[in-house]
Amino acid sequence: MPDIFPAAASTTDLERGTTLAPRFDANGLIAAIAQHADTGEILMLAWMNAEALQLTLDTGEAHYFSRSRNALWKKGETSGQIQTVVELRVDCDQDAVLLKVNVGGDGGACHVGFRSCFYRVVEDGQLVERV
Amino acid sequence: MPDIFPAAASTTDLERGTTLAPRFDANGLIAAIAQHADTGEILMLAWMNAEALQLTLDTGEAHYFSRSRNALWKKGETSGQIQTVVELRVDCDQDAVLLKVNVGGDGGACHVGFRSCFYRVVEDGQLVERV
Repeated sequence: MPDIFPAAASTTDLERGTTLAPRFDANGLIAAIAQHADTGEILMLAWMNAEALQLTLDTGEAHYFSRSRNALWKKGETSGQIQTVVELRVDCDQDAVLLKVNVGGDGGACHVGFRSCFYRVVEDGQLVERV
Repeated sequence: MPDIFPAAASTTDLERGTTLAPRFDANGLIAAIAQHADTGEILMLAWMNAEALQLTLDTGEAHYFSRSRNALWKKGETSGQIQTVVELRVDCDQDAVLLKVNVGGDGGACHVGFRSCFYRVVEDGQLVERV
């Protein structure tokens, strides 16, 4: 498969340019943060390969790459928790993306059943569930 | 160095237990999202090794691990952009942490000069700076 995305020609291009030139890691993945577009709540951190990122841009619905299943994955395909992308941002060195999303189905994102995957706070070295 | 953090004994312990058992990747790192405690703005995505996470918990100030410099790094040590941790959360499978922080110095987080590292939106396949 040819590369879907170009590489930035320079640090200036990477940081200030107009070309989307995501820097995938050695496994071909980039970290993707999903944030609720209305509430600002962080829903999840997941991973995208180039194909997942391109599909997300093309369809406006979040696609990820499952490291455990080693497979492309459309969020919500079975759960109904489709993430409609309101805005997609990239960070300074283009090795992370931020998706501001609205969520279909029951509005959740986490397979454990919570709205957000970050349902536990560290307090005095212990985890406490707090949604 | 002995392991700083234990491993979870089961998936149930990992997802619902009270033991902080972060799952570092093959490079010994875990993804860390810094979110502004007041505004909810995502400031940056960085990486922590076990030592950085422990130092963050012990001191209440965010420490990371720089992949490019291969070194532990206290955010703001030179810039003054110290991140004081208001809350630290871990996700369902404990391979990502979320830090809600207040920011010292000029209030920024990005080395390029923006408040957040995510200062560019993808629009029609191009990057547009929008803070």
